[in-house]
Amino acid sequence: MIHNFLIGASVVTITTMEKLTLVKIGGNIIDDENALTDFLTLFQQLPGKKILVHGGGKIATELSKKMGLNPEMVKGRRVTDAEMLKVVTMVYAGLTNKTIIAKLQGLGNNALGLTGADGNLIIAEKRPITDVDFGFVGDITEANVNTEFLTSLINQNIVPVFSAITHDGQGQLFNTNADTIASTIAVALAAIYDVRLIYSFEKKGVLKDINDENSVISSINEANFNSFVEQKIIADGMIPKITNALQAVNKGVSQVIIKNANDLLDQTAGTIVTK
Amino acid sequence: MIHNFLIGASVVTITTMEKLTLVKIGGNIIDDENALTDFLTLFQQLPGKKILVHGGGKIATELSKKMGLNPEMVKGRRVTDAEMLKVVTMVYAGLTNKTIIAKLQGLGNNALGLTGADGNLIIAEKRPITDVDFGFVGDITEANVNTEFLTSLINQNIVPVFSAITHDGQGQLFNTNADTIASTIAVALAAIYDVRLIYSFEKKGVLKDINDENSVISSINEANFNSFVEQKIIADGMIPKITNALQAVNKGVSQVIIKNANDLLDQTAGTIVTK
Repeated sequence: MIHNFLIGASVVTITTMEKLTLVKIGGNIIDDENALTDFLTLFQQLPGKKILVHGGGKIATELSKKMGLNPEMVKGRRVTDAEMLKVVTMVYAGLTNKTIIAKLQGLGNNALGLTGADGNLIIAEKRPITDVDFGFVGDITEANVNTEFLTSLINQNIVPVFSAITHDGQGQLFNTNADTIASTIAVALAAIYDVRLIYSFEKKGVLKDINDENSVISSINEANFNSFVEQKIIADGMIPKITNALQAVNKGVSQVIIKNANDLLDQTAGTIVTK
Repeated sequence: MIHNFLIGASVVTITTMEKLTLVKIGGNIIDDENALTDFLTLFQQLPGKKILVHGGGKIATELSKKMGLNPEMVKGRRVTDAEMLKVVTMVYAGLTNKTIIAKLQGLGNNALGLTGADGNLIIAEKRPITDVDFGFVGDITEANVNTEFLTSLINQNIVPVFSAITHDGQGQLFNTNADTIASTIAVALAAIYDVRLIYSFEKKGVLKDINDENSVISSINEANFNSFVEQKIIADGMIPKITNALQAVNKGVSQVIIKNANDLLDQTAGTIVTK
């Protein structure tokens, strides 16, 4: 954006980057049709340029059971064999994505559903086999995001909605973690926009006491994060999530906010992660 | 396209519309992974601007059975209740569409998967209930195609790939006949491009003798069509297909070609329907 200021007799031009909000919506919201509609009604009201990234939820697991598959979990992560890849492609890129698109269109946002394969937007590499073969799981970096095409869509007032499916550019689809897709796109776009990344889920933010929803830590940066971890206030699955958020702000994302889906429009709610 | 000719001492400029090929691929090809790969390898070689529209195939029926649904057919058409709509959305817009997108990307075409809901590309109306309620089935006309956004994609060298799902613009997805989507988009784009519509399937074209693959009728127009129908050479399901093709050429599509998927690049193969 270009701002002109008259200072004395001179016009001073200051160019600021346009704001863009990237929202990741968690699986628990997607599983509940009313919660999803409530969330999308808030998302629709978010002003300015925006992107939505959604994960899967339980529908894929339920469908795989109906199909007689037995999803294998290793270290809390799903192993994606060829049949499971078909299921997640059907549910994430088909049912969930298109349900969201139709609802957003009904609410007045011109949404467009995408996977990393569409428009060659995100190229992934098959996760290397170490002690575990995760199957058709793709790892990504910000260098593999086609920001040129993504920006051209955004500049046509399209609201891109990504499901957690990518491809290798050689014909193979992959399952990719939705949190990772969100932070990777945020970092890739940080060179072009002033990017705010919101992880919205069913909790009010990062909690000091996991049993007390009112114990939200309002602000985290590298210094107090290390102290929270030492004191065991932040533990378990929240450690990689915050580490990931700190990486995003270190790579140019303005802020990462972790908040309840119902508080999407509340600027003061949740936990803000900054440099 | 602008062509300049030097005639005597004068430069004469003739502007012609750019060619665009719209291919509809039938369900029998989609059901067979090798046939699909062979077809996409040919499609990838089609020069110039192009669009692919695909139908469903048997995967949706098989999946609905696995899920314990019992797809109801009335007059040869599937009744789409809420559960069946979920299945076709999963299979058409998810599995089939994204499999095609990844394969085309691997072959070097920058494909983008779409439903009518994405980018608000095709608005449909729920089919009116007469003696039959077809459920979530949407009817469309060329006035409901968002040619502005579709053209902007095509002009970025994107190859749009449509599955047979549309929406009402109010949040509801619909199942829409893929042949109809193909001819409706072709007619809508005929004002902008010189459009050729190819219906590719497992037969060599419109046959004089259904048991003789070598009895292809090379050319059909309104006059000889009526005579073929009177002589009962063209009958049954082929009558609405050709009627639809004749409507398309009457509404500005240059030609409609009905041919075998393997003959996609053979300019002389199949049945050509013209005015």
